[in-house]
Amino acid sequence: MSLNFIEHQNNILNSFKLIQSYIHKTPLLQSATLNKLYDNFMYFKCENFQKTGSFKIRGATSAFLNEFFKSSYKSLATHSSGNFAQAVAYIASLHNIPAFIVMPNNAIPQKVESVRSLNANIIFCEPTIEAREKTLSEITNGIETLKLHPFDSWSTIYGQATIAIELFNQIDKTPDIILVPVGGGGLISGIAIWTKINSPNTKVIGVEPENVNDAWLSFKYKKRFFASNKYTIADGLRASIGQIPFEIILHLVDDIFLVKEESIIESMYLIFERLKIVIEPSAAVSFAAIVEYPNLFLHKNIVIILSGGNVNLKNLPWNH
Amino acid sequence: MSLNFIEHQNNILNSFKLIQSYIHKTPLLQSATLNKLYDNFMYFKCENFQKTGSFKIRGATSAFLNEFFKSSYKSLATHSSGNFAQAVAYIASLHNIPAFIVMPNNAIPQKVESVRSLNANIIFCEPTIEAREKTLSEITNGIETLKLHPFDSWSTIYGQATIAIELFNQIDKTPDIILVPVGGGGLISGIAIWTKINSPNTKVIGVEPENVNDAWLSFKYKKRFFASNKYTIADGLRASIGQIPFEIILHLVDDIFLVKEESIIESMYLIFERLKIVIEPSAAVSFAAIVEYPNLFLHKNIVIILSGGNVNLKNLPWNH
Repeated sequence: MSLNFIEHQNNILNSFKLIQSYIHKTPLLQSATLNKLYDNFMYFKCENFQKTGSFKIRGATSAFLNEFFKSSYKSLATHSSGNFAQAVAYIASLHNIPAFIVMPNNAIPQKVESVRSLNANIIFCEPTIEAREKTLSEITNGIETLKLHPFDSWSTIYGQATIAIELFNQIDKTPDIILVPVGGGGLISGIAIWTKINSPNTKVIGVEPENVNDAWLSFKYKKRFFASNKYTIADGLRASIGQIPFEIILHLVDDIFLVKEESIIESMYLIFERLKIVIEPSAAVSFAAIVEYPNLFLHKNIVIILSGGNVNLKNLPWNH
Repeated sequence: MSLNFIEHQNNILNSFKLIQSYIHKTPLLQSATLNKLYDNFMYFKCENFQKTGSFKIRGATSAFLNEFFKSSYKSLATHSSGNFAQAVAYIASLHNIPAFIVMPNNAIPQKVESVRSLNANIIFCEPTIEAREKTLSEITNGIETLKLHPFDSWSTIYGQATIAIELFNQIDKTPDIILVPVGGGGLISGIAIWTKINSPNTKVIGVEPENVNDAWLSFKYKKRFFASNKYTIADGLRASIGQIPFEIILHLVDDIFLVKEESIIESMYLIFERLKIVIEPSAAVSFAAIVEYPNLFLHKNIVIILSGGNVNLKNLPWNH
């Protein structure tokens, strides 16, 4: 794998220019109360306010604009549990082209509904990476469709890296740590590349639900593991780590933390209550590292990536 | 009543200078999806992100800084169903002086808890304006305390007016309409004064729950009515219109709309879902005017005041 920093930097900057008119610059919020509670300085990067409700639109738009017009593609296709699906369906509707979306049959209804409302064609499959890829192959066989990968693709990763460009422009001091939720690994890969080029002393730390610890295992044993079938409320993080993200993480990420389901729910509640914003469980995972291990973060400047806000409001986890 | 615009403008600008380091400049958010749905241009002024979770800190800080140091006061006192109570308790804790807060015994637990956590002394009473004022008189009898009124006070109203200064600086076109929730009337009074001085063609419209329609009756019959005891989910709007706000509203407000409880809940849900922010039912009342009467707002530029975000997240109204 190439870790040519100059080439990556140019590609990320190029993606940033390409996607800029399609995305929002999202705010970096602070809470005096939460800073006091945890005795540190936290900056929440709010991708819940992003178009389609999550950061996924960055990678999807980057991949689309980098690849679609290079060939005679007539449609878009992907597999996704929800947020990347919504991003691809949104891009397709914006450009008036068909989208074919393979979704696992355990995707949350709210996300399925959003994809459907964007007029995408949804094909359900079993919730395994093999079933997702096999179904995608079958339905796109013989048609001129551009397959966009939610994380295992350089042009997707360059799009996600644009979050880091924004946050370094927004923050008033150098962050000691950036905390990033890890599912397939596209988000942390993009952020790690940009950060290690531009702020090498900033630690990039992934956070993963204990119940689906494939990235943690892969990082620890330097060998790619696949996601367990255990349940996590963080529905956006059930995917296994991708091959490209696995290699980037091994080279550039400083650590991966595991968090319990209770910490994820508590973190989500605290963010609703104190920041007054709506996030999804997967987004709360990054903050959960601080809630679960507060002593490791004392007095630090910490950026917390809140990845998205697509949650079923009629079924919030603290109501159970 | 004096409607000397030059004097009011000076007093509002003076309050703005005084309180600026104590408050947040809150964002003005838009949603492409909601604009499309209602075929208009909406700007949401997000006082849910304000310190203490509502606009009330503006008026409370303005009243405190204008009045406290003029005499030998030793403490602060007020009566409030919640948000003004939190604001006063916060100011008192910031300046290390005692606060005495009379709260109606139907105040929502989440708001009582927040006041308590700021170390204020809480005294409960029956939920009528008479009981609130009588209790306040009794407990402050003979002590040197500054009584801050949540709405029936010029220095409070000048503080609330600072929202209008901010929003006219933030918005890129002249608003046709500003929609404001009405309880005691302090918020709409401040906004109406500033708006009629600086943008006379902008309509200032109050919105009130149908179940507690005292401001609407007062406006319609030009005679001060008092709030019914009917239930509204908008707990911040149960107060009766104040005497000063009544007179300002008669002179300067263009109309008052009534909205149903179902519209308030639907509006609150739409704001959580689409804007990804947490608001309280009273804040949803302004947007509910559009949800209930969409045809009256077609193609308009509308500012919607979201007054606060202090809500019991464990008891959201759409979960019933």
